[in-house]
Amino acid sequence: MGNFIFGGCDTVELAKKYGTPLYVVNEDYILDRINEIKRDFLEKYANTMAVYASKAFLTKEMARIIKREGLGMDVVSGGELYTAIKVDFPMDKIIFHGNNKTLDEIEMAVANNVGRIVVDSMYELDLIENTAKKYHKTIKILFRVTPGVETDTHKFIQTGQVDSKFGIPLKDNIIKKAVEKAMACKYIELLGFHFHIGSQIHKNNCYILAVQRILKLIKELRDELGFESRELNIGGGFGIRYSADEERRSLSYFIDPIMDMLERECERNNLRRPLVIIEPGRWIVGEAGITLYTVGTIKEIPGVRTYVSVDGGMTDNPRPSLYQAKYEGLVANKYNEEVVKEVTVAGRCCESGDILIWDLKVPEIEAGDILAVLSTGAYNYSMASNYNRIPKAAVVMVSKGKDRLIVKRESYEDILKNEL
Amino acid sequence: MGNFIFGGCDTVELAKKYGTPLYVVNEDYILDRINEIKRDFLEKYANTMAVYASKAFLTKEMARIIKREGLGMDVVSGGELYTAIKVDFPMDKIIFHGNNKTLDEIEMAVANNVGRIVVDSMYELDLIENTAKKYHKTIKILFRVTPGVETDTHKFIQTGQVDSKFGIPLKDNIIKKAVEKAMACKYIELLGFHFHIGSQIHKNNCYILAVQRILKLIKELRDELGFESRELNIGGGFGIRYSADEERRSLSYFIDPIMDMLERECERNNLRRPLVIIEPGRWIVGEAGITLYTVGTIKEIPGVRTYVSVDGGMTDNPRPSLYQAKYEGLVANKYNEEVVKEVTVAGRCCESGDILIWDLKVPEIEAGDILAVLSTGAYNYSMASNYNRIPKAAVVMVSKGKDRLIVKRESYEDILKNEL
Repeated sequence: MGNFIFGGCDTVELAKKYGTPLYVVNEDYILDRINEIKRDFLEKYANTMAVYASKAFLTKEMARIIKREGLGMDVVSGGELYTAIKVDFPMDKIIFHGNNKTLDEIEMAVANNVGRIVVDSMYELDLIENTAKKYHKTIKILFRVTPGVETDTHKFIQTGQVDSKFGIPLKDNIIKKAVEKAMACKYIELLGFHFHIGSQIHKNNCYILAVQRILKLIKELRDELGFESRELNIGGGFGIRYSADEERRSLSYFIDPIMDMLERECERNNLRRPLVIIEPGRWIVGEAGITLYTVGTIKEIPGVRTYVSVDGGMTDNPRPSLYQAKYEGLVANKYNEEVVKEVTVAGRCCESGDILIWDLKVPEIEAGDILAVLSTGAYNYSMASNYNRIPKAAVVMVSKGKDRLIVKRESYEDILKNEL
Repeated sequence: MGNFIFGGCDTVELAKKYGTPLYVVNEDYILDRINEIKRDFLEKYANTMAVYASKAFLTKEMARIIKREGLGMDVVSGGELYTAIKVDFPMDKIIFHGNNKTLDEIEMAVANNVGRIVVDSMYELDLIENTAKKYHKTIKILFRVTPGVETDTHKFIQTGQVDSKFGIPLKDNIIKKAVEKAMACKYIELLGFHFHIGSQIHKNNCYILAVQRILKLIKELRDELGFESRELNIGGGFGIRYSADEERRSLSYFIDPIMDMLERECERNNLRRPLVIIEPGRWIVGEAGITLYTVGTIKEIPGVRTYVSVDGGMTDNPRPSLYQAKYEGLVANKYNEEVVKEVTVAGRCCESGDILIWDLKVPEIEAGDILAVLSTGAYNYSMASNYNRIPKAAVVMVSKGKDRLIVKRESYEDILKNEL
C-alpha cells in the first residue's frame, strides 16, 4: 500500500476511523524505553528509583501503564495528582513538585500520603509542617536546589541556573539554614535533594557538574550538621530526536558517568551512596507519539513559498510557536513516494505564528492527504488549548497492530460546558 | 480601604468570593468601546458595519452582549459559530473567516445561513460552491486578499504581507482569475474583499496603504471585468495599551483618514463607495479584562532578582511566553501603598518560561496578597490551556458595582471527562 505504519497500525486507516487531527501514541515504544530504564538503571544499579514525569503526557491510561510497569510518577499539580488517584496509583511512589504549590494541593498531597514532596521554598516548608501537624502525619521531603549549571537548551526550559524561579540556591548561608530548619521540623523528614537542570539536554557534562556540586554540599552537611542525605533526585531532561539534527541519547550515556562518579566520590568521602532517583518524561513518551492531520488549502505563492494548511496546529501543538521547536513530518498515504518539493505546513488558527513545520520535503501533495507530524508524544496533548474554540483532538493508543481510543475527541458542547 | 476597584467592584472581595486565579471582565468598558464604534463609525458614516472579532474573547454571555448591542460577529471556526448559534445570534450578521475551514465547518455555515464567508483560497471556493449547490442556497462571500503591507507588530501577528498563509495575493494574474471564477459560480455571490494586516497596530498608515491598493484593484475589476465591489472589509488590529510604553488609539484615529480617502477616491474614479466593515476584537475587550491571582512563594535571590510566584500563569495567559508580551500589574489589596521594590511575577507552571511580568514595581509584597494583571481581556481566556492539568479559571463579569459569574471554574473531573 505505501501507507505509513506506526505501532503496527496503518495510520491512514486510523485517520479514517477516528478522524483528524488525531494523536497516536505507541505503547510498544513506551515499553521499550521503560525496559531500557529497567535494564540500564534499575537492575544495573542498586538503590535506585525511576519516576515518570507525567507533565509530558498524562491520561488515566498512561498512568495505568506506568503503574503496571512499576515506575513511580512525578506530579506538579493537584490535577496530575487527581489523575493518579483516579487509577489507584501507589501513592508512596508519587513525587510532588512545583514552584508554587497551593495550600489546597499541599493538603491533597498530605491527606493522600504522597511519597515525597519536593520543597521549593521556606514558605512551602512552613505550609507543609502546619498541614502535616493538622493531619498527624510525618511528611517526607526533598529540597529542590539550583546547582547554578547552565545548559545547551532553550532558555524557557533551562532551569538549573542561579536566576530561576525554582528551588533553593546552593549558597552556604541559604541552603544550610534551610536544612537546619527542616531538621528542626517535627512533622517533616528531610530525605535529601532534587535538582532539574532543564529539558531536551543532549550532553551529560551538565549533570555531572551538578552532581559534583551537590555531593560537596552533602559532605559538608554531614561534617557540619551531622545530616545524612539519603536520596538524590537528579531529575530528567534527557534529550530526544525531534528533527534530523538531533538524536535521542541512550539512558546509559547519561547515567553511567553519573553513577560511576557518585560511587567513587561517596567511597572516597566515606559517604553512604544515596538512593538515586531519575525523572524522565519526554524521553519515555516524546518519540512515542505522532499527530495525524488532513491536508486542506494549499497556497502557492509563486517565487516565495507553498503553504499547506492542515486541520490542527498551535491548539494541539503549541511548541513551534512557543519555542520555535522543529518537527519532522511525512505524507502518511504517500509514504513510499518520491519527495519532489518543499512546503511549509501551516496550522488552521487565525494567527500567522501558527506554522507547524517550515520547509518540509514532500511528494506531490494535495487536499485530503494525511500528514503525520513525528515526535509529538510529549508536551502536545498536555499543552493543548481551545484557542479559536477548536476542540481537543482524540488520543489513540497503538500496540502491535491494535488500536484503542484512550481520550475521546472533545465536542463543541464540552467547550461551552461551564458557561452560564 | 485602599483596595483596587474595577467595574465598581472591590477586586479583593471578588477574589475571596470566587477564588483565584480569576478573570474579571468589565462590561462598562466594553460598552464604552461599542458606543465609540457607534458614534464615530456607524452613525458618523453611512453604509458601514461593525463586527466583533470573537476569537479575542468569546463566551455565551459575551455573544449575548454583542447581540444586544446590535454588532455583528466574526467567527473563525465551527466552535465559535456554535457559540453564536447557542445564543440565537442573528446569522446574517456573522462573518466566517479562516485559512483552512474544514468541510464540516463549511456545511455548518451554509446550513445555518451565515451572512458572509470570507474565502481564503480557490480550493475553498470549490468547497463552498459544491456545498451551496447541495443545500440549494446562494452564499455571499468576500475574498481575503493579502495587500502586501508590512506592519509595526510582532511577526506572529502580522498577516498582511505577501509571504502569508492567509488570503489571495494581490497579483493581477491571481486575484483577477479568482474574481472571474467566483463570478462564474452559480451558488456564490461575491460581494467584495477583506484584508487583515495584523494585530496590535498603533499606526494608521498601513491601513491607508492597504486600502489604496485594494481600491486600485476594485477600479480595474470594474473597468476590465465589469465587476462592482459592494463591500470592503478592512479587518481589525487596532492597538491597545498593555504596558506603559503603549496607548490605545481612538477609533477615529484609524477610521477617519481611511473614510476620507475612500470617499474622495471613489468619487474621483466614479465608483460607488462600498459598504465598509471593521472587525475589532482586542480593541473592544482587551483593556476590559484583568486577572486576579493569589501570591504564594516569594524567592529572593540576593543580588539577582526576587521572584513572586502566583497561582496561575502561562495556562491562563500564554501571551508572555508566546510573544514576549508585556503586562502591567498591581497589588490589589495594597493599591494605595507606596511602591518600594521591583519583583518578577512568575507563574506556577513547571517551566522557566512561565513568567508573567519582569521587573514590576510593587509595595511590600507577601504571600496571600492579591495581584491584578491588567489588560488581560483578549487572548487570555480564549488561549487558555490545561498544561500541568491546571483547571481553567472562572470568569466574572462586573458592571456598575455588580458582579456575575459567566464561566464556572473548571474542575479536575472536567479535565479528565473524555479519558477512557
